[in-house]
Amino acid sequence: MTLAPDRFAPMANAIRALSMDAVQAANSGHPGMPMGMADVATVLFAKFLKFDPADPYWADRDRFVLSAGHGSMLIYSLLYLTGYESPTMDDIRNFRQLGSPCAGHPENFLIPGVECTTGPLGQGLAMAVGMAMAERQLNATFGNDLVDHNTWVVAGDGCLMEGINHEAIGLAGNLKLGKLKVLWDDNKITIDGDTSLSTSEDIPARYRAAGWDVFSCDGHDYADIERALTEASASDKPSLVACRTIIGKGSPNKQGGHEVHGAALGMDEVAATRENLGWTSEPFELPSAVLADWRSLGQTGAKLHAAWDERLAVSAHAAEFKRRMAGELPNGDAIRKALAEWVEGDATVATRKASENWLNVIAPVVPEMIGGSADLTGSNNTKAKCQAPFTADDYSGRYVYYGIREFGMAAAMNGMALHGGVIPYGGTFLIFSDYCRNAIRMAALQQTRSIYVMTHDSIGLGEDGPTHQPVEQVMSLRLIPNLNVFRPADAVETAECWNLALESSETPSVLALTRQNLPQLRKSGDMLSARGAYVLRSAEADRKVILIATGSEVELACKVREELEGQGIGADVVSMPCMELFEAQDEAYRHEVLPHDPSILRVSIEAGATMGWERYTALSRNGGLNIGLDRFGASAPAKDLFARFGFTTEVIVPKILDKLSA
Amino acid sequence: MTLAPDRFAPMANAIRALSMDAVQAANSGHPGMPMGMADVATVLFAKFLKFDPADPYWADRDRFVLSAGHGSMLIYSLLYLTGYESPTMDDIRNFRQLGSPCAGHPENFLIPGVECTTGPLGQGLAMAVGMAMAERQLNATFGNDLVDHNTWVVAGDGCLMEGINHEAIGLAGNLKLGKLKVLWDDNKITIDGDTSLSTSEDIPARYRAAGWDVFSCDGHDYADIERALTEASASDKPSLVACRTIIGKGSPNKQGGHEVHGAALGMDEVAATRENLGWTSEPFELPSAVLADWRSLGQTGAKLHAAWDERLAVSAHAAEFKRRMAGELPNGDAIRKALAEWVEGDATVATRKASENWLNVIAPVVPEMIGGSADLTGSNNTKAKCQAPFTADDYSGRYVYYGIREFGMAAAMNGMALHGGVIPYGGTFLIFSDYCRNAIRMAALQQTRSIYVMTHDSIGLGEDGPTHQPVEQVMSLRLIPNLNVFRPADAVETAECWNLALESSETPSVLALTRQNLPQLRKSGDMLSARGAYVLRSAEADRKVILIATGSEVELACKVREELEGQGIGADVVSMPCMELFEAQDEAYRHEVLPHDPSILRVSIEAGATMGWERYTALSRNGGLNIGLDRFGASAPAKDLFARFGFTTEVIVPKILDKLSA
Repeated sequence: MTLAPDRFAPMANAIRALSMDAVQAANSGHPGMPMGMADVATVLFAKFLKFDPADPYWADRDRFVLSAGHGSMLIYSLLYLTGYESPTMDDIRNFRQLGSPCAGHPENFLIPGVECTTGPLGQGLAMAVGMAMAERQLNATFGNDLVDHNTWVVAGDGCLMEGINHEAIGLAGNLKLGKLKVLWDDNKITIDGDTSLSTSEDIPARYRAAGWDVFSCDGHDYADIERALTEASASDKPSLVACRTIIGKGSPNKQGGHEVHGAALGMDEVAATRENLGWTSEPFELPSAVLADWRSLGQTGAKLHAAWDERLAVSAHAAEFKRRMAGELPNGDAIRKALAEWVEGDATVATRKASENWLNVIAPVVPEMIGGSADLTGSNNTKAKCQAPFTADDYSGRYVYYGIREFGMAAAMNGMALHGGVIPYGGTFLIFSDYCRNAIRMAALQQTRSIYVMTHDSIGLGEDGPTHQPVEQVMSLRLIPNLNVFRPADAVETAECWNLALESSETPSVLALTRQNLPQLRKSGDMLSARGAYVLRSAEADRKVILIATGSEVELACKVREELEGQGIGADVVSMPCMELFEAQDEAYRHEVLPHDPSILRVSIEAGATMGWERYTALSRNGGLNIGLDRFGASAPAKDLFARFGFTTEVIVPKILDKLSA
Repeated sequence: MTLAPDRFAPMANAIRALSMDAVQAANSGHPGMPMGMADVATVLFAKFLKFDPADPYWADRDRFVLSAGHGSMLIYSLLYLTGYESPTMDDIRNFRQLGSPCAGHPENFLIPGVECTTGPLGQGLAMAVGMAMAERQLNATFGNDLVDHNTWVVAGDGCLMEGINHEAIGLAGNLKLGKLKVLWDDNKITIDGDTSLSTSEDIPARYRAAGWDVFSCDGHDYADIERALTEASASDKPSLVACRTIIGKGSPNKQGGHEVHGAALGMDEVAATRENLGWTSEPFELPSAVLADWRSLGQTGAKLHAAWDERLAVSAHAAEFKRRMAGELPNGDAIRKALAEWVEGDATVATRKASENWLNVIAPVVPEMIGGSADLTGSNNTKAKCQAPFTADDYSGRYVYYGIREFGMAAAMNGMALHGGVIPYGGTFLIFSDYCRNAIRMAALQQTRSIYVMTHDSIGLGEDGPTHQPVEQVMSLRLIPNLNVFRPADAVETAECWNLALESSETPSVLALTRQNLPQLRKSGDMLSARGAYVLRSAEADRKVILIATGSEVELACKVREELEGQGIGADVVSMPCMELFEAQDEAYRHEVLPHDPSILRVSIEAGATMGWERYTALSRNGGLNIGLDRFGASAPAKDLFARFGFTTEVIVPKILDKLSA
């Protein structure tokens, strides 16, 4: 069934009323965008979007991403109006209040119909690129019968002005993601005022330069909107639809101005808007005919869903498809078994190389792993032999050449993970975690299984110098909630950490890996890394010291221990590949590894910022000792830098002796 | 005097020889770019660039920015060949070795002729935008006689693919920075291979869409290069010159391929290149005629410099111009005096508002302060009343509408500071420090006086929710070396911290400010913040507790103290607006504020990540106590959030009592 466009105006006004009333009740929020885009959204949901309110997780639904997340009342309105279970009208009434899933910005972990968490501008669209990539990859793998859907995005001027937009649309253009459609809320207004204050860009020309099709419409003319969306739907390129709108449309005295962007209209203007729109319902009440029209929209999707269910039921791929979409790893503990069987001999390799070696073991048995790098494939060692490139000519490939686009890559990975059916990992130098830091944070907030492979993880990268040498990055990433930061010490820990990252379906991971070679310190892959930290070497003499180290400094800690033992001073070496997992262990285990014994000196050794290590060292003999690097590095061969900055037994052992005798 | 183009080939080959030999000697580095751009650089320095090797700091020199910083041997070659004092040939021979100023990437703090530190891709060009902005602002202020120079940039595909490029060129285009000229090394190669692997963008079309002029040339045809640079010079728009080049040009077997990008040619290929170029000199030796031609180039600039000196000598603005370019604040301690005279009464204001109030005091007396915001002017409170907008129509303005471009803004600010003569500050929400984090790091590395005004600094921002609530940002910024992170507690501390930021000419600052109101805790502006931390309230009863807090939690600490005192438990409140400055105090002062007394319990209170606070608390009674937030926030009114997450006396006082009795 199809609604005639003369039914659209009251439907769009329902969005406007809910939005202005919810913002007014909270006295906080952004009414301008939902009111301005209400007409476009109504046509999209009525005529184009494939969705089934009864099942927000239907695998072949169209993805709808509200990249301009501050307009959250738009999506809350749409989900309620079309009949999703969440949010309820009570939730909307409690917009932006503690406990309501109708948060200030849409959050995927609170409402199933919200595909991704948006608000940090530009990232919604960039995640949508990843969703469209995942769709094409699964389509190439499972065929049109199971996977064939669009990704629709609503984006504002802010999303388009952010740098990440350039990266996202360049990637989408090169990959010819024809099922990606972006509806640009072209309202000529930013927070500071008219867009001309800060930009004079010809946006359609830029999108065309990136290989996109561009269409436009009057965003308040239903027929014109439908025409433009029809044209966009027919394009085999990624499409931008410039929807010329009036921000806050409906508010007689405030529409078109920047004040309506981010503040409640005020009681008087809410009343004036009601009158202007001819909207007589009380706040949070809806005319039954309008609600009925909205509720009718889900029927088309429900039928398509039913037909899809039938195809899935008879598909030879059904089990595999369901497994991947459920995010379950293949064959239970096959990966752990592979690890137990795979232990490199006396492998002296960089952990980035160990990572590649392990990828060559697991990537063939975990076909949903989609790798990539931001133009550092040979340096990040991220490409497994079994992976062909993912290109516009062959979407079945499993390796993405992301280009020099760290932020775009990280956000696309989040979108791929949110889409489901694939497990994305991608590489860059650790220093450039700075370039994509907020996408890593958004992975953590959204609880996605994104795996960031960050190589060249310290001054050990050598000659490239301080611009390329991470100093504070490892510790600063540890500060992000719900993120596991792994810094493995050798080939065995690298494989273990990779497995932990894969098994961690609701927590993203960073793997911090070395450029330089490291000796193998352990002979068995018995998953000691799963505890986050463990005693790698036990004191032989009377224990006076516990050395706690990560990554490349574990080797150094072992050498320091030998020197100390040679002087009759017993020392444990604790390898701590993942602080977060160690913190999650029970107290008994933590005390076993780091006993509360004030006679023992605890020493941290990590070639990075020391702040934070006091958590494990300060409460020990004489206040503990932290060996690290609290300044920028320098350009020189790695071994010279480690010597210059005191990462040698000659420097560290005397410091420990001094501290013991203090 | 002007060299005929037939002298250019050996001059360009001198760059090629130095570059390949230096990289070969280091067995590390990037020969491809300097060899590919040698011809373009030769024409630029011979015919267009205004420079005086005798004075790298001449205020009216053209700025030359090597945005593709990995090609550092290009600039080291050029500086040596044209006769700058630094680098020496010995420095070049020790390229990428400890102690040589010829670092892997060019570093402004090692070589005066290097205008800015580059390597993190895209930022050089973005800093050049800031330099061109500073030039126009000073030109509008001091006139053509004193300030009238170009900013030239060499950029590669990586610089253009990064998101920040979109922000930078959009800003430059809107501001019509006609004296900015970008030479794009269009060599069709990235590290992973051909550029078509990752991009199919029409770059000239994108630049035109942003309001730029675009020219092109054969980057190995001297006449064609000169034609294109002449056209670019004549344009009144920012200009891109697409220089079609062959990467590694001159290497007979490796040129044009991606292997020559980032690795030494190898001894055999170095020899083959010598033969191919007809270059018979030994490594690090130069034919005297070629060197003489290069050394002759500085004469034009020296004459221009002498004429400029004469104009400066008779300029009515000379003293003020010199003061600004020297980076000296006006009138010695006028600002401190203003502070002493300016103390708000019982001001209950947000610190973002206190910041605005203070800006209205100091901006009129420090005319080199150039403010701005990434489209959050009304929220960041960054615009002083005396500041008119800096626009294409009026470059004398002192307030920049940066648009929704946090990274571009932060990098432009660094470029403005590096140019000199202005002190840039700019605002965004603290959460979006994530978007510009590496530019903040680059300010710290480059020792620029960039002042980042970061408001909405905790869950205190309320309803916008976890995407907008900083949790880990304050602590993670503290990890960056040479960066002062200020989190003032009230109006007085805000003014003090602003002054400290202004006085700190070689260390950038972050001011983390609240959205919500805070009471005034101190009545006098006696610069206690300069010590980083100080005792704000002293224990009255026998001191058992020291409460250490920052920003909005200092008020809470005072309330906790009152409760404790009411129970006979003496407690100090230490306000710590700047950890870095506290760390820089002598031991006596630090012990005075935080005495080593194991009977005293130290408690940190900050509405953010606790990791790091153990530095000040762990070594105290029963291991100390850290009150913070180690999870993401939520969407709700601020007061509900502070209650929900335990930032109340009701929650904290019992925790302290428990700890005291543990």
